[in-house]
Amino acid sequence: MSRVQQADGHQLISSFDSFLFDADGVLWLGDTPLPGAADFLRHLVSAGKNVFIVTNNSTKTLDDYVNKCKRIGFDMLSDDHILSPAKVLAHILAKEKSDLPIYIVGSSGLQKELKKEGIESFGTGPDLVESYTNVESIQQMDISRKVRAVVASFDIHLSYPKIMRAANYINQAGVRFYATNPDPRLPGPVPGVIIPGSGVSMRAVQTAAGKEPIIIGKPSKTMFEYIKERFNLKAEKSVIFGDSCETDIKFGHVNGLTSVLVGTGVHDLNKVEEFEKQGREDLIPNYYTPSLKVLFDILQK
Amino acid sequence: MSRVQQADGHQLISSFDSFLFDADGVLWLGDTPLPGAADFLRHLVSAGKNVFIVTNNSTKTLDDYVNKCKRIGFDMLSDDHILSPAKVLAHILAKEKSDLPIYIVGSSGLQKELKKEGIESFGTGPDLVESYTNVESIQQMDISRKVRAVVASFDIHLSYPKIMRAANYINQAGVRFYATNPDPRLPGPVPGVIIPGSGVSMRAVQTAAGKEPIIIGKPSKTMFEYIKERFNLKAEKSVIFGDSCETDIKFGHVNGLTSVLVGTGVHDLNKVEEFEKQGREDLIPNYYTPSLKVLFDILQK
Repeated sequence: MSRVQQADGHQLISSFDSFLFDADGVLWLGDTPLPGAADFLRHLVSAGKNVFIVTNNSTKTLDDYVNKCKRIGFDMLSDDHILSPAKVLAHILAKEKSDLPIYIVGSSGLQKELKKEGIESFGTGPDLVESYTNVESIQQMDISRKVRAVVASFDIHLSYPKIMRAANYINQAGVRFYATNPDPRLPGPVPGVIIPGSGVSMRAVQTAAGKEPIIIGKPSKTMFEYIKERFNLKAEKSVIFGDSCETDIKFGHVNGLTSVLVGTGVHDLNKVEEFEKQGREDLIPNYYTPSLKVLFDILQK
Repeated sequence: MSRVQQADGHQLISSFDSFLFDADGVLWLGDTPLPGAADFLRHLVSAGKNVFIVTNNSTKTLDDYVNKCKRIGFDMLSDDHILSPAKVLAHILAKEKSDLPIYIVGSSGLQKELKKEGIESFGTGPDLVESYTNVESIQQMDISRKVRAVVASFDIHLSYPKIMRAANYINQAGVRFYATNPDPRLPGPVPGVIIPGSGVSMRAVQTAAGKEPIIIGKPSKTMFEYIKERFNLKAEKSVIFGDSCETDIKFGHVNGLTSVLVGTGVHDLNKVEEFEKQGREDLIPNYYTPSLKVLFDILQK
């Protein structure tokens, strides 16, 4: 722990005016709120700080997500301070002057989020290979529909026809390729079981299309650009709390934010040491705290 | 064309004793043999050279492939000189002392090829997400079956359940992860239509599992190691003819073979110049010929 400092609540509150939080592994685990997390956030809000929840979750609609926050004690934040890649993408697309639809390799939750901003999309649900009998017939797939963008996200209906369709739409002139987030796996509730995430859809489509996606979620810049512009934030006065070095801490580095690794999720200080040995500067947090409860307890003293 | 030399048939025949050929784009296009190709191969065989067809094709069984060779004029080669990743993989697996099956994300052609060597496998055909109703139920997928290896290959039934199954099997202790070949796309018969290839299955499974596959086909070393050992070849006396810099020419570099780019397929000299500008030494051929007909015509003079 040569370079990572132990975080201190008082010092953080005096140094920063905007506080971003990853959710799962930082504020809660599944449906269980983590001790001290809601107390810490409530303290920040009452101290007049900007507080945001910034998730990469794209399996639920944001409404479901907001409801969950309220249900398990995170009711101190207004809805527009709870941010997902789907919400930011909907905002980006809504600014465009185009009536063309979006092709989605993703969930109905993502589709609903786009629809709320008036953006038409298609492609959710199964696109069964049974509709094509063999390699020869799949070559006859109708890919002539005009779209303005393709989005790759978490999709339990991910299939060969969908990947092929996405790649061919991306190859149309002027069509943009977005990915909600690059996470290869979901934080699974069953220990040891791998649940493939948005990153799998993204890599499959990217490989077939031979083109890089514009990534919306952490660790890319897109989400913070949106927050910065909409809420008039300054990177140097902002801090991100996260449990994943590869997602949250890297998001801090990419956007010029200070970062705090919270030890209640996927990565601990041993992992940080490993990244230090590998020379992965972009994954090393500025601060570490075992939990948000530790920070809240410091504030009580 | 600063470094690439024009290939000369006489010079090649005097310098090398083993000649490897990629098929589609070099010997034929689809079902149409390319002019001079069969003549050139027949000339090499009658001159006492070792001649091989080395394909990455994993959509057909090798029997289908051998039959095609004979049907369109490439009957000068014995069956065991026609090599595919499936054949080499079957050979590798047959040497192991294990009765555990292989999980295949791939075609029935691949399964048949393994079966010929007595290797049991499962997983071909659809594994429909309809058997699982939602994200929660897919977490209950039975992944307890013991396997000894997972193979990712071309599969029009590629789907979320298959990717999840493959990733979880790979995570069992001691299970190896193979990919027949990394080609992102098939050479499509319909111009402008992308047909996703083995590389898409490979990247999807690799992303979910968080592990690198052992690649059998070109440009990896595995296939040439097999040929070298079985036929007692020397790399420095061998030459590969191919139409893809990323597959065939790189295969030459990786294995220490001399390489000839044949201009009847995917890459031409403009593309070579582009790779030169990018400093991609591993993709620059030693020689270039517009077609195998040009080399055969030289031999007739």
